[in-house]
Amino acid sequence: MKIEKISSSVSLKRSIDQGNEQQREAVLSILETVKREGDAALRAYTEKFDSVTIPTLLVSDEEKKAAYEEVDEQMLAIIREAADNIRDYHVRMVQQSWMVTKEDGTMLGQKVTPLDAVGVYVPGGLAAYPSSVLMNVIPAQVAGVERIVMVSPPQKNGKLPAGVIVAAAELGVEEIYKVGGAQAIAALAYGTETIQPVDKIVGPGNIFVALAKREVFGLVDIDSIAGPSEIVVLADETAYANEVAADLLSQAEHDARASSVLVTPSMELAEAVALEVEEQTSRLPRKEIVEASIRDYGAIYVTKTMAEAIDAVNSLAPEHLEVVTENPMEILGRIKHAGAIFLGRYSSEPVGDYFAGPNHVLPTNGTAKFSSPLSVDTFVKKSSIISYSQKALEENAHKIAAFARLEGLEAHARAVESRFKKDTN
Amino acid sequence: MKIEKISSSVSLKRSIDQGNEQQREAVLSILETVKREGDAALRAYTEKFDSVTIPTLLVSDEEKKAAYEEVDEQMLAIIREAADNIRDYHVRMVQQSWMVTKEDGTMLGQKVTPLDAVGVYVPGGLAAYPSSVLMNVIPAQVAGVERIVMVSPPQKNGKLPAGVIVAAAELGVEEIYKVGGAQAIAALAYGTETIQPVDKIVGPGNIFVALAKREVFGLVDIDSIAGPSEIVVLADETAYANEVAADLLSQAEHDARASSVLVTPSMELAEAVALEVEEQTSRLPRKEIVEASIRDYGAIYVTKTMAEAIDAVNSLAPEHLEVVTENPMEILGRIKHAGAIFLGRYSSEPVGDYFAGPNHVLPTNGTAKFSSPLSVDTFVKKSSIISYSQKALEENAHKIAAFARLEGLEAHARAVESRFKKDTN
Repeated sequence: MKIEKISSSVSLKRSIDQGNEQQREAVLSILETVKREGDAALRAYTEKFDSVTIPTLLVSDEEKKAAYEEVDEQMLAIIREAADNIRDYHVRMVQQSWMVTKEDGTMLGQKVTPLDAVGVYVPGGLAAYPSSVLMNVIPAQVAGVERIVMVSPPQKNGKLPAGVIVAAAELGVEEIYKVGGAQAIAALAYGTETIQPVDKIVGPGNIFVALAKREVFGLVDIDSIAGPSEIVVLADETAYANEVAADLLSQAEHDARASSVLVTPSMELAEAVALEVEEQTSRLPRKEIVEASIRDYGAIYVTKTMAEAIDAVNSLAPEHLEVVTENPMEILGRIKHAGAIFLGRYSSEPVGDYFAGPNHVLPTNGTAKFSSPLSVDTFVKKSSIISYSQKALEENAHKIAAFARLEGLEAHARAVESRFKKDTN
Repeated sequence: MKIEKISSSVSLKRSIDQGNEQQREAVLSILETVKREGDAALRAYTEKFDSVTIPTLLVSDEEKKAAYEEVDEQMLAIIREAADNIRDYHVRMVQQSWMVTKEDGTMLGQKVTPLDAVGVYVPGGLAAYPSSVLMNVIPAQVAGVERIVMVSPPQKNGKLPAGVIVAAAELGVEEIYKVGGAQAIAALAYGTETIQPVDKIVGPGNIFVALAKREVFGLVDIDSIAGPSEIVVLADETAYANEVAADLLSQAEHDARASSVLVTPSMELAEAVALEVEEQTSRLPRKEIVEASIRDYGAIYVTKTMAEAIDAVNSLAPEHLEVVTENPMEILGRIKHAGAIFLGRYSSEPVGDYFAGPNHVLPTNGTAKFSSPLSVDTFVKKSSIISYSQKALEENAHKIAAFARLEGLEAHARAVESRFKKDTN
């Protein structure tokens, strides 16, 4: 890995795939066709893109049973424990409706309501992750969403991966459909004979899925469009080079466009990590992906001071941040922008990917400056409540009317005044 | 107004202006030019679109003084009281960072951090509303945003409206720039010599502003793209027809595309409201706008039962909902989708536009199904915190590694295991 000296601000090399005009047109045509032809279009596109004929879209009880037989007992226990941890963490962030009551009888408040129906897209191929099922579905369940629909492209054998089915079945997801790509997004947004439409679509996907989500946004809500994964490790001379290197490589193996960065005031650590990365890479099964990722998007930045290193981290606003310093808790308050913050040597990033409880769906591409992890908040919305008393309106009607007239809105003023005019009519 | 009998589900006639290709190209060209030429481009576009030459973009202290002289003392007191009410309501929704500590030393939590810098767009012309300044700026201040920048197009005299300047000055907003349109959005997103870039842009605007916000989304965050205003009144036979009509008309005067709807099980009320609307419209200064709005987007829906009427309201998911029934509190729990809910006869909708405290920036176009009012939440973001103890990692490393290997991510497994390998090396 290249070592580079910097002062306090730096920007990550990031690769955002926006798609090209041809891909966009393909997506628009798929959306239109599914809207018009429903299930028939879903079947046709599945034959075309996934090279398999799907007699029924819904995953059957038999398919669920078969999936359970493929997953061993020990692994099932781990999935269950992870699900419990994720649920336990997310339950703590549930927001309550609230009310303020005033002596004159006025009440103001906010009502928190779950969304009615949510669609979860689970990608196929190499990225078919049971952990993604847990991370997307559990917060929606905790939020109180009544209908959760899962869609995922079938494999060549016409089935979904066993781990994905088992994870969904463990959570009690009943509607699992074997359909992926832009056609699945269309089905969730517009509905078909088999798939009723939803109000929000979450979950990562390839460029066609991302473009389709962008197109249907407005009709339904979507989560953020995820970019390649990123990690920044902020470390001082107390960190172990082999551990830092291992964590950098765990991001790099995701994707040749993933980005792994070390920021440190210690040149000694920087050099040791660079060596470790090279050494460990050679022994990894996904060696080619890792090498490309480290070469194109990896970096080691050396600053003069820890304060400069922290500024650099804030300017990067990484998806994952590890703080591996002597006293990581002291630094927490100075971290302004990061999707998830892992503190100390024993908080290796994969702890958060699978098991600890916090969500692994995090803001990428520097959007941690203004975005949050997927959470229970993602699946609720709020309504303001205003219950004004007669006394409150009597006291304030002339002020409200004056404000309305200042803005040239006479009918607003008269609406408020109408409450009192009647009594004199 | 037309009276129509319905059962339980109905959709609002809505007019969403998506812009045309020509407008989109104009916006792209403005964005590019401002990015390249900075302040010079802002000045050139202001001359072109606002027909005025602006020597300095920043509103000066002299301009602020002059604005205060235009606003009378009584009006200033009302603005201040409204600001206090808005602040008081929004302070109650501030979310705290939280932590869970476990006996083994593990800590999990969530850190709530305000955005660094936010831009507020305040439209010009007829829609130059001081109340919008209060509603957009105060939640950002309560959230703790350090830098709040306001932009608004200058009038033909080269100034901003006095009410807008005074509202901003009252809140202590220091950066107020006389620039509007897509060029203002470009300045906020990319920065110029005078205007430093921000992380999020909020506030309504015309189609060029909306298209520009959509284009810069991703680089910065944006609030929702607002559509025309909507009100649904859910009423029974206890409601006063003149009051219901006055409230419907207060929405209608906003915009010829605004939508005003009554849903009621009472045919008697329906007929009386239809008459009142006609009668009151004739006496309104914005008569032409109101007539067009009521004709094209107004409706009175009569259902058989209140239960059906409530279902109809939920299917509409209105921006504003008034519940004017005998016991509105009993109905609150059955309302699933609405931006703001006004309960009872004395909660006329303009009470919420100006004065009560809840925000008047609300989800339009049926997006109340999945979106929330503008709030303190709009200006903060969250980071997950994971601090695993040695003991917790020792106990769980093999589970995490097994999960990673199930997903084919060997480097993830090794990262976790690296913490313990060292001791045996």
